[in-house]
Amino acid sequence: MLEICLWNPDPKTGIIHRSDRIPDTIPNISRFQQVVLHQGRIERFFLDSISENSKRTLKAVPGWEDGIRVEHGVLPTSLEFDESLAENADAYPITVRLRHLTEQEATPKQSATSLNGSGLQDGLFRSNLSSDDTQELLDKSKLLQAKAGREETVKAKYMLGADGAHSWVRNQLGFKLQGESTDYIWGVLDIVPITDFPDIRMRCAIHSESSGSVMVIPRENKLVRLYIQLTTTENAGGGKKADRSKINPESILASAQKIMRPYKITYRYCDWWTAYQIGQRVGDSFSLKERIFLAGDAVHTHSPKAGQGMNVSMQDAFNLGWKVASVVNGTSDRSILKTYQSERRRIAQDLIDFDHRFSRLFSGRPAKDVLDEEGISMDEFKRAFEKGNLFASGVAVDYGASIVVAKSGDSTKQGDGTEVLGAEKLRVISNQGLATEIKVGMRMPSFKVLNQADARPWHFQELLKSNGTWRVVVFAGNIKNPDQRARINKLGEKLSTSTSFLTRFTPPNKRYDSVFELLSVHSAPRQEVTIFDFPPVFHPWDDNDGWDYWKIFVDDVSYHEGYGDAYNNYGVDREKGCAVILRPDQYVSWVGEMDDYESMEKFFSGFMIEQPGGRERMATNGWEGVSREMNSTGLPATDEAVVGTAAA
Amino acid sequence: MLEICLWNPDPKTGIIHRSDRIPDTIPNISRFQQVVLHQGRIERFFLDSISENSKRTLKAVPGWEDGIRVEHGVLPTSLEFDESLAENADAYPITVRLRHLTEQEATPKQSATSLNGSGLQDGLFRSNLSSDDTQELLDKSKLLQAKAGREETVKAKYMLGADGAHSWVRNQLGFKLQGESTDYIWGVLDIVPITDFPDIRMRCAIHSESSGSVMVIPRENKLVRLYIQLTTTENAGGGKKADRSKINPESILASAQKIMRPYKITYRYCDWWTAYQIGQRVGDSFSLKERIFLAGDAVHTHSPKAGQGMNVSMQDAFNLGWKVASVVNGTSDRSILKTYQSERRRIAQDLIDFDHRFSRLFSGRPAKDVLDEEGISMDEFKRAFEKGNLFASGVAVDYGASIVVAKSGDSTKQGDGTEVLGAEKLRVISNQGLATEIKVGMRMPSFKVLNQADARPWHFQELLKSNGTWRVVVFAGNIKNPDQRARINKLGEKLSTSTSFLTRFTPPNKRYDSVFELLSVHSAPRQEVTIFDFPPVFHPWDDNDGWDYWKIFVDDVSYHEGYGDAYNNYGVDREKGCAVILRPDQYVSWVGEMDDYESMEKFFSGFMIEQPGGRERMATNGWEGVSREMNSTGLPATDEAVVGTAAA
Repeated sequence: MLEICLWNPDPKTGIIHRSDRIPDTIPNISRFQQVVLHQGRIERFFLDSISENSKRTLKAVPGWEDGIRVEHGVLPTSLEFDESLAENADAYPITVRLRHLTEQEATPKQSATSLNGSGLQDGLFRSNLSSDDTQELLDKSKLLQAKAGREETVKAKYMLGADGAHSWVRNQLGFKLQGESTDYIWGVLDIVPITDFPDIRMRCAIHSESSGSVMVIPRENKLVRLYIQLTTTENAGGGKKADRSKINPESILASAQKIMRPYKITYRYCDWWTAYQIGQRVGDSFSLKERIFLAGDAVHTHSPKAGQGMNVSMQDAFNLGWKVASVVNGTSDRSILKTYQSERRRIAQDLIDFDHRFSRLFSGRPAKDVLDEEGISMDEFKRAFEKGNLFASGVAVDYGASIVVAKSGDSTKQGDGTEVLGAEKLRVISNQGLATEIKVGMRMPSFKVLNQADARPWHFQELLKSNGTWRVVVFAGNIKNPDQRARINKLGEKLSTSTSFLTRFTPPNKRYDSVFELLSVHSAPRQEVTIFDFPPVFHPWDDNDGWDYWKIFVDDVSYHEGYGDAYNNYGVDREKGCAVILRPDQYVSWVGEMDDYESMEKFFSGFMIEQPGGRERMATNGWEGVSREMNSTGLPATDEAVVGTAAA
Repeated sequence: MLEICLWNPDPKTGIIHRSDRIPDTIPNISRFQQVVLHQGRIERFFLDSISENSKRTLKAVPGWEDGIRVEHGVLPTSLEFDESLAENADAYPITVRLRHLTEQEATPKQSATSLNGSGLQDGLFRSNLSSDDTQELLDKSKLLQAKAGREETVKAKYMLGADGAHSWVRNQLGFKLQGESTDYIWGVLDIVPITDFPDIRMRCAIHSESSGSVMVIPRENKLVRLYIQLTTTENAGGGKKADRSKINPESILASAQKIMRPYKITYRYCDWWTAYQIGQRVGDSFSLKERIFLAGDAVHTHSPKAGQGMNVSMQDAFNLGWKVASVVNGTSDRSILKTYQSERRRIAQDLIDFDHRFSRLFSGRPAKDVLDEEGISMDEFKRAFEKGNLFASGVAVDYGASIVVAKSGDSTKQGDGTEVLGAEKLRVISNQGLATEIKVGMRMPSFKVLNQADARPWHFQELLKSNGTWRVVVFAGNIKNPDQRARINKLGEKLSTSTSFLTRFTPPNKRYDSVFELLSVHSAPRQEVTIFDFPPVFHPWDDNDGWDYWKIFVDDVSYHEGYGDAYNNYGVDREKGCAVILRPDQYVSWVGEMDDYESMEKFFSGFMIEQPGGRERMATNGWEGVSREMNSTGLPATDEAVVGTAAA
C-alpha cells in the first residue's frame, strides 16, 4: 500500500471524485513500509521461527530435542493462584487445568452463508456481533469429556492471557474492559473486484454524500478488502448488538455499489467476509501481581480500520517477553515487570483515544458546507488520517521514566499511573544532548553503518537481534585521535576487570556476551582502522572461532548502498562520541558520555541481580596462547582440532 | 564480499603489506552485488523452485500431480541417435538407456584424510587431479546389476548433457575439449580462521615474495575459503598430473602460513578441502544436430578463482531452456536452436582467454622491479582484476546478430562462427539510437518504474519473469500529448486485430499473453493518468479477475525508493518513446519506433510458426458485457459466481 486516495462528494454535483492523495507510509519514517499480509501468514512466520529457534537452542535438552510446539485446540478449565507465593521469584504460584479438545469441538460452526452451495468462509463467528461462546465451548467440552481428549495440570511461574476480546483469563481475574460500543456497523468483503473504479489498487477512503463510507485495502493475489458502512442495516441503537441475520455478501456488496456509484463494482470470487460493530474498550488492569498478564484484544478492542489490532498486540507481547525471561533466568529483579502495565496500558489508552476520533470521522456524513455542523469536515478527516499514520507506524511510541528508562520526570504521569521507579539513590538520568536523535524511551532509530572488518553495510537495527541481551553501544568517535584512543582504552580496561558489571551480573559459567553485547561505531575513516585498534573486549575471543569480527562498525560511505551518515543522523559528536544503553526490545534506556562507565554500572545495578563468583574468563585474552603455540607447531595439536562437515 | 585487498611484498623489505583496495562489485553495475553461497544452497533453490512451479503448472496433468522430481544416482548406459529424424520437429530421434544406481554405488568413496579420525570431507574425488571415474562407476554398475536398481529406456526429442568435465555424453558424441593444463597446483581450505591477519574478512589477493600466492574469500558461518598456491608440491611438469598423495590439509595450511607471514594463521575447524591443477579447455562443438546439447563443465573448464564455473554454466542452461521449450511447444522454428552454440561457445572462448591471462598473473612471482622481466607486474594484476570483475558480473555479455537478435553485421564473426541469420527478406535491423542504453544483444538493464494502478516501485527486471514469454515493451512517452495518444491508440488497434502477430502466432485456445506479454512504461505524471487512458490490449481483460492492473508502468518519483529516471537512464526520448522486443531470457532483440508494428511483425515472422485458426478472443472486450449486466442485477448471477476459501 503506497498511496491513500481520498474520495468525497463534489460540492456542486454530489458525485464522488478523488479530492486528495496522501502517501500511505510517511516517507523517511522507517526503512520498512506498510504492507498488508494475511494474518495466517504472520502466524506462520511466528510458528516457523519458534520451531526453528527452539530446536536450535534446546537440541541438547532431553525431551525437548524437537523444540517448542504450539498447541491448538486447548482450553483452560480452571485457574488457581497462590497469592502468598507471588513475590518468591522461584515459586510456582499458578495452577491451570487444561483440556485438549477433540477436532469436532475445536472447529467453530460457521454460518451457512455460501452464495451457491460451496463453502464460503465468513468471519461472523469471530466478530464482535456474535456473543461470547467461550462458556458454551467449555460446557460442550465437559459433556464430551468422557470420549474426548485428555486433561492436564500445569504449574507455572508466569502466565499470559492473550485470549482475545472474550478473554477467559481476564474473566477469571475479575478484570474489566472499560468503554462503549458505537452504533456504526461495517461489513467486510475480501474479493477479486471487477470494476471501473480507477483507484481500486490504492488504499481509498470513500465518503459518499449520504450512503455511508467505503475503505479500500488492496491485498495479495489480486484480492481487495472493502470495509463497507452498512447504513441500511437494522441496528438496535444505543450501542446494542445489531441484527446479524440481515447481513450477507449480497447486502454488503449492494451497500458498496450505492456508495461507489457512478462507478460499477462486482465480483466472481469472494474469499471471505464478515461484519462488525465498532466499540472502543481498554482493560482496567494488565496483570495480577506481575504473575498473570493480559495482552492484545484481552485488554484493548477497537475498530479494525486503523490496522492496529495485531500490531499493538504483538508489541504487548514483545514488551513483556524479554522482561519475564530475564526474571526467570535470574538476571533481573521482579521489579522490572511493573513496567509492562505502565508502558503498554498507556499505549492502549492512546490507541483507544485515537480510534474513537478516527471512527467518528470515517463513519460520519461529509459536511455539505461550513454551516453544516452535523457533518464532518473532510479537512479534519485528512489531518486525522495523516496523524493516524504516524501513530500506526509504531515508531512514535515513547515509554516513560522507569527503572529501565533513565529519563527525568514523574513516572506515573508518563505511564498509566503505575509507580515504576527504583531506589532513588540508583536513579540515573540520561544526558540526552549527547545524542539528540537517540531519544530515551523511544526505539533506537536505524541508519546504515559498515562492518569494520568486511565493509558490509548494515542497518543498525539489524544488529539488534531479539535474543534477550542488553546492548551497550559505544559511539567511539574519532579513534585516530590519541585522546579518544586513550578514552576507549580506559573504558575497555574498566569493562575487563573481574568486578565490572559485565562480570558481576553474568551468571556463573556463562560468557558476559550472553547478557550484554558491546557494539561500537567509530567515525574515523574505515580504511585507516582495523579491529585491532580496539581493546579486545570490543571484539571478544573464542577458542574455536578466534576473534569476533561482527562487533565493531564505522560510519563511512559504502560502495553500493550510499552513506548512512549515522553520527549526524543520531545527533552524536563525530569527535567525542557517546554511549547508549539499549533494552533487549531496542528501546533506549540511557544516553551518556562515551566513557561514563560509572553511570552504566549504576543503571544496571538498579534492577540486575548480583551473581555468585566462578564465572568464565573475559573472553578477551585467548590469542596470546594460540599465537605462542603456532610459533612452534604451526597447527594446533591434532587432538584439539575440530573437523567436520557442518552444513555451510 | 565488498572489497578486494591486494597484498604484495614491500619493495624495500619484501614483507607483505596492503598495497591497494578495489570495490569487489563494480558500483552501479547492477542492483545485485556479488556474494558467495555454498553450491548446495544454490542447488536447493533450484530444486525447490522446480518442485513448486512444476506442481502448480502440472497439477491437472494425470500422473504429474506431484510435479517434476529431480533424480539422483542415475547413470546413462547407452545413447542412440537416429540422424534421419533430426529435422522432424515432432520426432523422438534420441534413445537413452538409464541405470538407477544403488545407494552404495551412488556414494563416491572419499580419501581417508581426516585429521583426527572424524570424517573430514575433501573434494579430491571431484577434483581434476583425480582420473575420470565414470567408466569405473559404470562397470561397477553392471556388475551389481542383478541385485541393484532398475533400468529404463527414455525416448527423447531433446537431450542436454550437463555432466561435468568428464562428460559421458560428450564422449559418446566424440566431441573434444581443446586446450591444455598448466603446472600451477592450488590447494583449497574452508576453515574458521584463527589469525591476526587484519583483512581475513575481505577478499584478498596475497602475492608473497617467493612462496606463491593466496586468495582469501570470506564465506558464510564464519568460514573463510583460502586458495593456496602449492609451490613446494612435487608436480610432473609439462602439464601432467601432480602427485596428490603429498597433498593434505596440513601441507596446504603450511603453504598458507609461509605465504602470509609475518601474520599467523591456523584453525580448529576445517569444513572441506581440495586441490586442483589449473587448465583451460573449451569444447569443439556444443550440439549434435541441435538435438543433443552440452553445457557447463562438459564444454568449458578453467580455474575456479574467477568464480565463473557455476555462473557461466547456469547461463548456458538458461540460454538453451527457453529456446528448446518454444520449439517443443510449437511456437518457434527449430532454426533458433543454432543460436545456442553461436552465443554460448563464444562466451566460453572469451572466458577461457580471460582465465588464461588471470591465472598467469595470479600464480606468477611478483616482479622485483621494472627490470625483472620474469616477474609479473602488480599494476597489470590490478587492472586484470578490475576487468575480470566486469566479465565475472555477466552483464558484459553481448550476443551477436542472429535470427533472434536484430542487429547489423556478420553473425559468424559476432558469434563462434556458426551461421545463425534467417531469410534475408525477413531480417530486421534495430534503430539503436531510439534507446541508446538498451543495447541490442545485451541484457535489458534495470531501473525502477512505478505501477500505474498502485504506485508501487518495481525494478524493471522484476517484471520479466522467466516463464518463456516474449515481451513487447512499449515506452509510450508522454501520453497526455494528443499526438502520442493517437499513436498508442493506433498501435493498440493493430495489435488487437484478428490477424495481428499476437493472434497469428498464438496456439489455438490459448490467450495471446501466454506467448507475448505487452508491458508499457509512459512518462506523463502518474497522478494525471489511469490505466483507462490506454487501449484495452495493454491491460487485458479476464472474466474472473476483471482488468489486469500489472502491465502499465510510469517513469515517476516514488514515495520511498527515490526516482528510477528510467527514460533518461534507458536513453529514450520522454515525449516520443520507443518500442523494445525482449527475448524470454531478458536479452534485447530489437529497438524501434513506438508504433512500428510492421517491424515487430516482420521480426517475429522470422522464426515463429503460423498457427491454425480458432483462437480465443483478444481478452480486451469483456467489460462491456459485465457492465451491462450489473446495471440490472448488481451481482453476477449466483450460479456463475465463484466462491471459495483459497489460501490468500
